[in-house]
Amino acid sequence: MTGEHSSKQYDQELEGIRSQVLLMGGMVETQFEEALECFRIGDIPRAERVMAEDQAVNQLEVSLDDACSHLIVKRQPTANDLRTVMATIKVITDLERIGDEATKVARTAKSLHERGVTGFAHYDMIRTIAKATSELLHDSLDAFARLDGKQALQIIAGDEVVDHEFRTILRSMVTYMMEDPRTISSALDTLWVAKAIERIGDHAKNIAEYVIYVVEGRDIRHSKVILDDLPAV
Amino acid sequence: MTGEHSSKQYDQELEGIRSQVLLMGGMVETQFEEALECFRIGDIPRAERVMAEDQAVNQLEVSLDDACSHLIVKRQPTANDLRTVMATIKVITDLERIGDEATKVARTAKSLHERGVTGFAHYDMIRTIAKATSELLHDSLDAFARLDGKQALQIIAGDEVVDHEFRTILRSMVTYMMEDPRTISSALDTLWVAKAIERIGDHAKNIAEYVIYVVEGRDIRHSKVILDDLPAV
Repeated sequence: MTGEHSSKQYDQELEGIRSQVLLMGGMVETQFEEALECFRIGDIPRAERVMAEDQAVNQLEVSLDDACSHLIVKRQPTANDLRTVMATIKVITDLERIGDEATKVARTAKSLHERGVTGFAHYDMIRTIAKATSELLHDSLDAFARLDGKQALQIIAGDEVVDHEFRTILRSMVTYMMEDPRTISSALDTLWVAKAIERIGDHAKNIAEYVIYVVEGRDIRHSKVILDDLPAV
Repeated sequence: MTGEHSSKQYDQELEGIRSQVLLMGGMVETQFEEALECFRIGDIPRAERVMAEDQAVNQLEVSLDDACSHLIVKRQPTANDLRTVMATIKVITDLERIGDEATKVARTAKSLHERGVTGFAHYDMIRTIAKATSELLHDSLDAFARLDGKQALQIIAGDEVVDHEFRTILRSMVTYMMEDPRTISSALDTLWVAKAIERIGDHAKNIAEYVIYVVEGRDIRHSKVILDDLPAV
């Protein structure tokens, strides 16, 4: 499997790209944490900084896609080596979308606090889903950094917890809205934030699936069987 | 620009993949139209068929990604040729996500009709956004088939209309919910459907951006300047 193309230089260049992708991962992770904090305390200038930061993330997406293309053309990787580049290209897309969702959280936080939150403890509603998703995101970047297939499998299972928590929030919000229609507007904003968080969980799961694709050479997207491979907790 | 790699065989294989991607595009387009129809008339078995269809779309994603990898390894494309393959890989991801959103529309249609719609004409609420998005999706596939950069530019502008329409729906729904809290549950379902449609518009826009990347060799993602290039309507 280690043909002529799997040169030291190829490995070095690929590692360079992978470090940059991890840097991008760190950026969107910070964006997400900051956006959550803005939602919690209503710091509007901070929310605006999170929104502005998205441009840097977007630029990184474009330049990293470019770097992957250059690597392919210059080094003409074997099928085995190409798998890592293909997965990296997909991970870059997911990271950019995570940045988009974090930006939405910041934008909604700004809007909600400008209008004033009414009727319920809005941050308490999302505390659990935010914590679970932050961990998933962190772990997915960690699994990508270390190409750890086992950790990746756990992330895929963890995303189910996030989805379940979203449905719980939805039910609570409907109750609030029904009991006091004055809460409808802020309840909807809280729901949009919860939805954005839930999507970040989906992207973390996608990243985990690409890690497994690199490590095990099998494409497990859309496969249910995988959960049987999980060690009992 | 037509180096040794740009052989007839490469072109043929790439065309083969592109036809398959267009086939996948046709599948998600049908999924979307069917899901909208289920939402309109409340045909539950039909909604279940749309949801089941998603597996075929998912499998096509995996096999088309694979075909792109094989093409790169076997034909070692030049930078110029690689651009089309890279764009195709990205388009495949967006098509799969469109399938996911169409599935959500079908699932919500099923749930809404099983519980009974109350208080407002739910399909009328989304008629405009559904029509605009169907057209965007159709046009984006058309632009990808013919690699038509001009049409792609128009799609990018068209997505703003979809986003604007979503905000209109959101305001109407808040009004309904406030006036009659018994509508909250079905209004939320209608909002989720509108949100899924709005995201399909985003994906159509992504596809249009990849078309421009292939045609003009520039990456216009995240660029605002582009709208200046649009002909006055």
